[in-house]
Amino acid sequence: MGRLLESVTDPASLRALSYSELDALAAEIREFLVETVHCIGGGGHLASNLGVVELTLALHRQFDSPRDRIVWDVSHQIYVHKMLTGRRDRMATIRQYKGLSGFADPNESEHDAFSAGHAGTAISAAVGMAVARDLRGEDNHVVAVAGDGAMTAGMALEAMNHAGHLGLDLIVILNDNAMSISQNVGALSRNINKLRVDPLYRNAKVELGNVVEHLPLGRAMWRTARRLKTSMRDILVPARFWEQFGFEYYGPIDGHNIHELEGTLDAIKKVHQKPVLLHVLTEKGHGVPEAASDPIKSHSGTYWMKKPAEPGASPAGPSYSQVFGQATQELIEQDERVVAVTAAMLEGTGLAPVHAKHPRRVFDVAIAEQHAVTFAAGLATQGLKPIVAIYSTFLQRGFDSVVHDVVVQGLPVVFALDRAGFVGDDGKTHQGFIDTSYLRCLPGMVVSAPMDEAELRDLLYTGIMHDGPFSLRFPRGAGPGAPTDLPMKQIPIGTAEVLRDGGDIALLGFGASVTECVKAAGILSAQGVEATVVNARFAKPLDETLITALARRCGRIVTVEENVRAGGFGEGVLALLADNHLAGSFLGALTMPDAIVDHGPQTTMRALYCVDAQGIAARVVELLGTPGGDSAQGELAHVS
Amino acid sequence: MGRLLESVTDPASLRALSYSELDALAAEIREFLVETVHCIGGGGHLASNLGVVELTLALHRQFDSPRDRIVWDVSHQIYVHKMLTGRRDRMATIRQYKGLSGFADPNESEHDAFSAGHAGTAISAAVGMAVARDLRGEDNHVVAVAGDGAMTAGMALEAMNHAGHLGLDLIVILNDNAMSISQNVGALSRNINKLRVDPLYRNAKVELGNVVEHLPLGRAMWRTARRLKTSMRDILVPARFWEQFGFEYYGPIDGHNIHELEGTLDAIKKVHQKPVLLHVLTEKGHGVPEAASDPIKSHSGTYWMKKPAEPGASPAGPSYSQVFGQATQELIEQDERVVAVTAAMLEGTGLAPVHAKHPRRVFDVAIAEQHAVTFAAGLATQGLKPIVAIYSTFLQRGFDSVVHDVVVQGLPVVFALDRAGFVGDDGKTHQGFIDTSYLRCLPGMVVSAPMDEAELRDLLYTGIMHDGPFSLRFPRGAGPGAPTDLPMKQIPIGTAEVLRDGGDIALLGFGASVTECVKAAGILSAQGVEATVVNARFAKPLDETLITALARRCGRIVTVEENVRAGGFGEGVLALLADNHLAGSFLGALTMPDAIVDHGPQTTMRALYCVDAQGIAARVVELLGTPGGDSAQGELAHVS
Repeated sequence: MGRLLESVTDPASLRALSYSELDALAAEIREFLVETVHCIGGGGHLASNLGVVELTLALHRQFDSPRDRIVWDVSHQIYVHKMLTGRRDRMATIRQYKGLSGFADPNESEHDAFSAGHAGTAISAAVGMAVARDLRGEDNHVVAVAGDGAMTAGMALEAMNHAGHLGLDLIVILNDNAMSISQNVGALSRNINKLRVDPLYRNAKVELGNVVEHLPLGRAMWRTARRLKTSMRDILVPARFWEQFGFEYYGPIDGHNIHELEGTLDAIKKVHQKPVLLHVLTEKGHGVPEAASDPIKSHSGTYWMKKPAEPGASPAGPSYSQVFGQATQELIEQDERVVAVTAAMLEGTGLAPVHAKHPRRVFDVAIAEQHAVTFAAGLATQGLKPIVAIYSTFLQRGFDSVVHDVVVQGLPVVFALDRAGFVGDDGKTHQGFIDTSYLRCLPGMVVSAPMDEAELRDLLYTGIMHDGPFSLRFPRGAGPGAPTDLPMKQIPIGTAEVLRDGGDIALLGFGASVTECVKAAGILSAQGVEATVVNARFAKPLDETLITALARRCGRIVTVEENVRAGGFGEGVLALLADNHLAGSFLGALTMPDAIVDHGPQTTMRALYCVDAQGIAARVVELLGTPGGDSAQGELAHVS
Repeated sequence: MGRLLESVTDPASLRALSYSELDALAAEIREFLVETVHCIGGGGHLASNLGVVELTLALHRQFDSPRDRIVWDVSHQIYVHKMLTGRRDRMATIRQYKGLSGFADPNESEHDAFSAGHAGTAISAAVGMAVARDLRGEDNHVVAVAGDGAMTAGMALEAMNHAGHLGLDLIVILNDNAMSISQNVGALSRNINKLRVDPLYRNAKVELGNVVEHLPLGRAMWRTARRLKTSMRDILVPARFWEQFGFEYYGPIDGHNIHELEGTLDAIKKVHQKPVLLHVLTEKGHGVPEAASDPIKSHSGTYWMKKPAEPGASPAGPSYSQVFGQATQELIEQDERVVAVTAAMLEGTGLAPVHAKHPRRVFDVAIAEQHAVTFAAGLATQGLKPIVAIYSTFLQRGFDSVVHDVVVQGLPVVFALDRAGFVGDDGKTHQGFIDTSYLRCLPGMVVSAPMDEAELRDLLYTGIMHDGPFSLRFPRGAGPGAPTDLPMKQIPIGTAEVLRDGGDIALLGFGASVTECVKAAGILSAQGVEATVVNARFAKPLDETLITALARRCGRIVTVEENVRAGGFGEGVLALLADNHLAGSFLGALTMPDAIVDHGPQTTMRALYCVDAQGIAARVVELLGTPGGDSAQGELAHVS
């Protein structure tokens, strides 16, 4: 670790440094960031963090955290902030089980003003904090730092509108790296980006730079900046846009020049009774050529930095996302009605290669889940068959569009929910823990989950052939390795299948949990307990015939799923059994906990909450020992 | 009915009329609208419809519906459209049970291109329709008509951004009446409204009007309009704003001048490869002085038009909304931490008088539910106690903010959900049918519902005193008439109460259904069936002690609620019983159906779906006759 970095114990210690020392510190921080990301095996958001080194330093010198609130939007760019606020020694634990979170977490430090993980929330939270400050007669600053991608999220603009209406003392820093996670989409970002190439802007900026360098900081510079801003206004297209929201617009300024950043922050701190938007230009991956050259792939740090293979790990097959992407491409090529929609997640959902091949049939609408879903509803009214590919956790943001625009009209839209269940290192803001519940309550919505890659293909095809709302969920990462080159076939909706027969207990798995149930049956068999294993496939509608037959014959039912229990697959099975006066045969639902689940490897979390094979087997043995377990109503018999 | 109106059988028949005939027709339509709204007893959205008479006529002359798609945002302004598209004879049935919907409904007519009820969805749907058209090589027009209020909804801006990015042939008509349902909020609308008072604009508009009147329609006018637009650009602030989204901006034009409307529509139809925003200025209530003078109250038509009292109806007490407003005011006055937040629903939620008295403590953030919730989360991080008042159906739009910003951080935000359960005349887009499900699945969220007005006060107070996420739901309209002047008291979270003892069956009611359960118990008693009635109060956490004790003693449990079954209170009770090996005592859950429910009076719908007293009693008798019913496991005994 560098000498300067070692000397920084808290934000206050930054204030003693000279600008040349700060530049040296920035270099040390970059080195440390690269080491950190290497140390954790290539995960984490390297490029974004490399882009905000100077901005973070300037913020912590100009503002007094935690008294002043700094709210990081999405907050994957928070590593430098963590290093400067007492967590440097634990940086190697970031995104590791029981280690630091990869995102802002108020439980971790009082310097993390607001938890985040989804884009576009920071300004709303900051408006709340600023209003609370004013109500209490306090005078701290509130600063929201949001990327240009976050500004495509409608709620960010809703918050801007409210802040402008209130004439609030609030600073919004637009961290414009011309690149959200994927390429930015939208006319808006195209206009923001004009600045980078417009020669008029370039010249004006050089002039501003010259003037600023020859002026003492403080009042004089402030006046000059104001004057320059006014005269530059006409060539700076974005200014007018933000001013319509009631903001004072400043910038754009160089986000890698600490001196310029601090001068401007010092000036805008003095603006009152009006929110300020400071437009800062940064480069993702700045200072590390390999990361800057391809920021999309280095977003998650794994691209250019070789991750050492875990000893003994078998070569993983394609991820569910890749299988989904490939299947979508086949469907697009087979059926001219099929189109795909995603919200700034072309890479994450596996649709990037499909988009490259069929740019007119795959739509990336930016970070705009509400629009994505209602846009798909509009497509469906015209006879198209849209597949909406949004992570389980992000579809929460499009929930009303699912209800009001798709379900109420019964439109044939297929929702493909990636990252369902335990999400791994991204942690609590990204867990796909409630989608089965929030979809199962919707009239006419089919809720399904494949047990493996082959079934993902079949269910996607089934969805396309279905004339109504349809959803399928699948987990992050690779599946059990089923073949992905078979022709897709339609599965009758609401049919489950028995994978294994056994008379002592029936395990009904939903989605990825089916594989764990099969393994659990093996463990149980070795202990003398014979289990039937059912691949439920559908949480709605349920296979009533098969499930009631099982309950009557076997008499002991346990469900397994990666969703919370309330409203999930298990409660659905229980309700179905109760309707058939068979509720007594329900021994229990193994689910995700009714709790916020932190980050940690999927395998660790599955074990911790007893939904992996070992956990299921152990819980079954326990349940068989309970009153319900040994006084089951049904007769024990094999399902024929 | 007027002579001209009678002659209009479909949109095509409008095209034969002269401009003077059209003005006469507009007057006949207004008369008919007033009669219609009178006929249905003062419900409906009179002022909005009076404001779009000329616009609707112009649209149907310039576009060829249904080949051209006209998408009405929110669609409460759709009455004139319905009259002109073959539904004039049924207008008196609007919003009546089995009558016409008060909103767009594709099941009702092919001219209703998209169902709506919530604001801000039309542009997204229209983008989908336009993209589908282009993919299929067709050439119809797609027109979205959205109010200025809808433009504060983030998703409308998300859709604008996407349309601009695509360079889509699409027309968005901004129907600017300077008034959404409540007063518009936000800097944005203030800027839009500048136009109405800016003398520069007034002059420019007069000039434009003069020029247009002396030009033949067609190409020449089009060129002139373009030229004028360019020269007027600098004084027309909004133009630049919409142009940032990639739109061509036209207007503002007089929305009550059919000639001007048609000339402009004819011109913008010829714009290609770029979406167009046409800014139309209209007046809510136009042409009917009583309606125009106070459009907020005449929004729902009941204010200035006396509704005849139903014979024999008892004078209704205060609505739940009023009780909520009053209780919120008391809490604001008692506790300086308490603030309230709503999303363009000051009147509907009962907060208008509270806002008038405490303007700094009650926040209307515009139609921006996502921002409303995350803003409240920001307030809560600073030690305030926000109450978020959003209808059950509209909170769907803030769902991710509830999860990601409130629940993940465990923040003390109180959600007050008005219009929970059957909503009445507004119908399928407004039913509060799933909130118990979408909230019960959230870790740490308290899900409660008062049985009457007094308990609403107590639960609201309980929520304020609770240190975590808390929700309460209550129905539209008046409650049973409990006192509203008692001091509010805290109810221990997760405690139910027994209202009536009976050994044959236990009815567990949630919220407004409790009153129906009490009445049902009376009916059952007359038939010799003695029911215990429980006011559950909480769907999460449940009162495990009381419920399991009841199940053990009484052996037969039925739940009643106005929410769908999947994920609702009933499934929660069943799961609790199963955990305690008492699932056999669960006879059934009486709920809203797993279906989209149309409009109709609440009493009618409750009866139809068997959740009113008569229906509950009948279902109980039926359930007691079933195998589960007469082979209950528990012993029959009164609860002591």
